Formats: sequence, C-alpha cells, structure tokens
Amino acid sequence: MLKSRANIKDVARRAGVHPSTVSRVLNPATRSMVSEALAKKILRIAEELGYRRNPLASGLRTRRTYTVGVVIPDITNPVFPPIVRAVEHALDEKGYIAILADSGSKRRSEKALIENMKARQVDGLILAAANRKDHLVDSCIDEGIPVVLVNRSVEQHSVSAVINDDELGIDLAFQHLIDLGHREIAYIGGPQRASTGYTRYRAFLRSAKQAGVNIDRELVINAREFTESAGQAAFQEIARTGKNLSAVLTANDLLALGVFDALDDLDMKCPRDISVTGFNDMPYVDRFVPPLTTVHISLEELGVQAARLLLEKIENPDAPSKQLRLEPRLIVRGSTATLNAAQAKSGNRVA
Amino acid sequence: MLKSRANIKDVARRAGVHPSTVSRVLNPATRSMVSEALAKKILRIAEELGYRRNPLASGLRTRRTYTVGVVIPDITNPVFPPIVRAVEHALDEKGYIAILADSGSKRRSEKALIENMKARQVDGLILAAANRKDHLVDSCIDEGIPVVLVNRSVEQHSVSAVINDDELGIDLAFQHLIDLGHREIAYIGGPQRASTGYTRYRAFLRSAKQAGVNIDRELVINAREFTESAGQAAFQEIARTGKNLSAVLTANDLLALGVFDALDDLDMKCPRDISVTGFNDMPYVDRFVPPLTTVHISLEELGVQAARLLLEKIENPDAPSKQLRLEPRLIVRGSTATLNAAQAKSGNRVA
Repeated sequence: MLKSRANIKDVARRAGVHPSTVSRVLNPATRSMVSEALAKKILRIAEELGYRRNPLASGLRTRRTYTVGVVIPDITNPVFPPIVRAVEHALDEKGYIAILADSGSKRRSEKALIENMKARQVDGLILAAANRKDHLVDSCIDEGIPVVLVNRSVEQHSVSAVINDDELGIDLAFQHLIDLGHREIAYIGGPQRASTGYTRYRAFLRSAKQAGVNIDRELVINAREFTESAGQAAFQEIARTGKNLSAVLTANDLLALGVFDALDDLDMKCPRDISVTGFNDMPYVDRFVPPLTTVHISLEELGVQAARLLLEKIENPDAPSKQLRLEPRLIVRGSTATLNAAQAKSGNRVA
Repeated sequence: MLKSRANIKDVARRAGVHPSTVSRVLNPATRSMVSEALAKKILRIAEELGYRRNPLASGLRTRRTYTVGVVIPDITNPVFPPIVRAVEHALDEKGYIAILADSGSKRRSEKALIENMKARQVDGLILAAANRKDHLVDSCIDEGIPVVLVNRSVEQHSVSAVINDDELGIDLAFQHLIDLGHREIAYIGGPQRASTGYTRYRAFLRSAKQAGVNIDRELVINAREFTESAGQAAFQEIARTGKNLSAVLTANDLLALGVFDALDDLDMKCPRDISVTGFNDMPYVDRFVPPLTTVHISLEELGVQAARLLLEKIENPDAPSKQLRLEPRLIVRGSTATLNAAQAKSGNRVA
C-alpha cells in the first residue's frame, strides 16, 4: 500500500551533493556537521521529493537506531510521567526517540520487554524499574548495551545512575517529626528489592538511632509495592498491634495516600490523630485532603540527567560510568502537626 | 561490542525443523500456529543457543515491525497514563510493543514525531492528539498506515476511533447543576481544534437550550489548552465581567482544578460560593479539596478498544473503519451543592 518514494540519491543529485551529506542533514544528531544554508536547501529538496530518512534501515547499516528504550515500573504512578517527559524531550533534541514500556512491576514482563527492546537493537536503555541485584541489568552490561538507571541503583555493577540522596530525604522528614514533638513514630517502607525501598528503610533506622529515638519494630513495615493499597494494608497491620503512635513516616507518596485511606476507615483524622509524611512530592499531592507534607525530588532533573548520561554513554561506550545524586528538600504542608495534648495523654492507641 | 550469536538456522537445525517454524514460534503473534510441545522445545533450544528474534530485521523482510506508535498530547495529564497502560497491555498480548511519544500539545513536534514513527515503519498508529481537521491523519491514511484515534475523532475521513459520548456526558453534568437549582451557569471549554473541545462546547449550548436556560455568552470561554493554568485564566476572565454566576461547568478535570485555583485567589469557596463540575474523572480527583463532581469515562476501556481496533486494521487493512462510542456517567462528589440562600440573594457576583 506504500507509495514508492524518491531515494537518498535522488535528493543528493538534485542538491548537487554526495548522498552521505544528505544523510547527515536528515539525521538531527549530525545535522550540525553541515552548514545551515546547505542543510536548509537539502531539507527543502527532500521535502519536495517526499524523501524521508529510514532510521530502521540506516540503523542496520550504521548499527545505530536512534532509539532508546525506557522501562518504568508503573506509568500510572504520577511520579513517572514527569520523568518520562523530561527524558523524551532531552532525547528528541538529539534526534533520538524513546520506546516507552510499562512493566507493571512484574519481573517476568519486564524481562520480556527488555528482551524485545534488545531485539529491536535500541542504542541504550533507561531503566526506572531495576532491582538492587538485577540480572537484567547484568545481561545488558554483558552485551555492551549502554544502560542508565533513573531513581534506582544496583549493587553488583558500576552502572550509570541518577538517583536522589534518599538518606538525606528520610532524615529531613524524620527531623521534622521530631521537631514537632513526635517520638512514637511508625515507618511504612517499600519493597526491599528496589534500591529506593532498601536505602530509605536503612536511613529511617539510622535517623532514629542518631536522634536517640527508640523505634518499636512492630511499627516498622516494608510493603511489597509502592502503591496506595499496600500502604493502606500496612497501616491496618500497624493499627492491629494496638501500639501507641502519633506519626507515620512513609517512603513514598502513594504509601502515604494509603495511610490516609486506612485512617478514614478507622475514623481517625490526619494530622489531628496521626501526622503523615510522604516521599517524592508527586503531582497533585498539594491538593489532597490534607495536603501532604513530603520530600520533594526534582522529577524533571532526574529525567534530563538520565537522558544526558545515556547519550554520553552511546557516543562513548568506554567512558566510565557516573552516578549523579540529586539533593531533595522537605515540603511542609497540612498532613503534619505538633504533637497535641490528646496525643501525648492517650498515647493515641490506634486500635 | 555485541557478541556474535547463534542464528535462526542453528536453532532450526538443532530442533530438526524448518527455519520458518522457528520464526513462527519466536513471534508471539504466530506462536499458536505451532503445537505447544514443539513451541516449547524450540523456545528452549533458542534460549540455550542464545538466539533472539530480531523484529527489526524480520520487519524489513515481512514488512511488519510489530511496533505500534502511540502519540499523546501530554503524558503529565493524568487522564493518559491509564489509557496508555491499557493499550500497552493489549498490544503486548499479541506480541506488539508500543513506541510512546508525548507531543506536548505542539503541532510541530507532533508532526516530527509521527514522521519519525512512519520512518521506523510502525505497523500502525494510535493517536490521542489528533485535531478535528487533521492533515497528519490524512497523510497516514493516504500512505495506507492503519490509524485509530482514541478520545478524539476527525471530520474529514472515515477513520477508526474510540471516543466517549461527550454530548451525554455534558448533558449529565448540566442536568445535575439544574437539579441543584443553578441557572447562572458559566462554561469553560477546551480548544476547538480538538473534537472533545468542540463537541463538548456544542453540547453545552444544546443542553442549555433544551432546558430553557438562558446562558450569558460572556460566561462562556473556550480555553486554548486543557490545562490547569488555562482553566484558572478563563475563570479570572469570567470573574472580571462582574456577572452573576453560581456554577461553572468545565469540559475537563484539569480546567476544573484551574477554577479551584482561581477561586482560592478570589477568596471564594467551592461549593459554597460556586459549584464546579469536571470531565474525565481522572485519577485522584476524588482526593482533592473539594473532591470533584465529574463525568466518568472508562480510561482503560478506551485503551483496550483502541488497541483492538488497530490490531484488526493491521490484520485486515481493507476492513471498514469503526467508531466506538463509550457511555459516560456522572459521579457526584463535594464540588457541587444546592443553590443556597446567599447565592440566590446576592446573585453571587464574583468580581
């Protein structure tokens, strides 16, 4: 059904240049190698003749497809779209496009997706879904495919990554609760297979130790997923212990929203009965009831830097890997409040 | 840097079958043509030998790449991630992957993205960013590329599309406001180049006419984008007219959030001073202050049906185009209330 089109030689002949010059102009990544006036002329002629570069075919010749695979664990988690958009726009500027895939947190489908992307000979991968010990990342490295992790890191390899200073983020949230007078603090963390889940959990224990605050281990739960329903279930479990608490520090905003839901079910109010903190400052948490006190990370910067590191790695595969660590900050909103008389007196038993 | 690998003939020889059988098994879309036992054997041998199907190269032979391009206008609009996820999962089941691109509402970049996807010889396109009169859609049709629109329709062609019954949706919201006693109703719509913006605007005027409610044209504004900032600016413009109103019907949830922001700036309360309705029931609007009364559309169903229509079209390019229209429903939450005495008395002049 496809119409036959002019080929690159037709364009080169009309412009009076070598086909390789046409090729350079039609690839945004190499256009700057040709003078602007000549580039404009060639683009005009290509358009007149209806010639279009086929990166798929040229990828087979040059071993480059100008395609980057981006794997995220959950596109419906509002933290990822701003990262994805920043990645796409940064790649687009250099003539690359992103193949986005949503693994839905399932390791099996993640493997299939990455295999599929490798088979499509992507020039590199940006992974937001990696585990701390990740054989999928290993296999990419072994095959020489440039990989950059975003919002994740792995233990076993020196892999490029853009992450946040999670220790600092957790400590900011913890100190905030301490400053408000809270001492009976629960923790709801994320999956320990993910670096974010693991690092934030360790950071919480360390912050408590440094502050000389005794944490009841029954009030510390690492959820299996960073989701609202996992956060809700974790808080219900904490409530069933019947222990006293006045605040919950969570490792992710969706977990915090789950705590809101659990509090609703128990007819308890945030922050009157329980103060709650989140992590990520994902879009819209400032609009929630109550607006969420959380650790802000720059989602756009995560995406921009991940794209930049990957493009460097594609241009120069032998360059050493880099880890960038961005600095988070605390945003105080309505979900945290000073320990009040009722909380101090009753010990605020939740069950 | 890539290791040399076994090829399809090595796998076929070891399995004692023709290479075309191996090819069928390794493509999820054709695997069912081979017995399950044989498929398992071939998959095991392929894994042992480290052979991987290259859909890029096989796409050049078979003219199929098992890749679908998905263009959305704004990945950070929470309405799109659930649609995208549903599309991805439905495609994945048939062995296709999605190349996702976010056009950021810019027509120029949208053109570049679609051109890029065409050059990569996608088997089809799912477009959520189409205009009512769209030469980009025309050009795809002219070139014989299967296209399905999702949450959009176009005028000039018989193009497959999955849309919502926007007339019904707007009428449900309008009737709800009328039932609450409101008569001085403002409307904030979306861009008229988009079918959703156009259809919802026409539906609002029709609903008002049928209900015998006189609408002040100064209270009717079609914003240029479906964004919070556009909704905020539109309500500020309405406020500057100094006209009486007690309710605002908006054509999209983000516009409604912008009205919330404008009301905050004016020290007015929703719904005490102004009732507000949205459209889409995007994720998290039930958590906002106040929770948004809105028209619910099934985002997952939009995605699933769009993928299904596109796969049909890819299998059978000559099949007639189909338009599916899904039925929306109203979800009443806290942003709408009965016309109160203060509103009825003062006429609730906003400026």
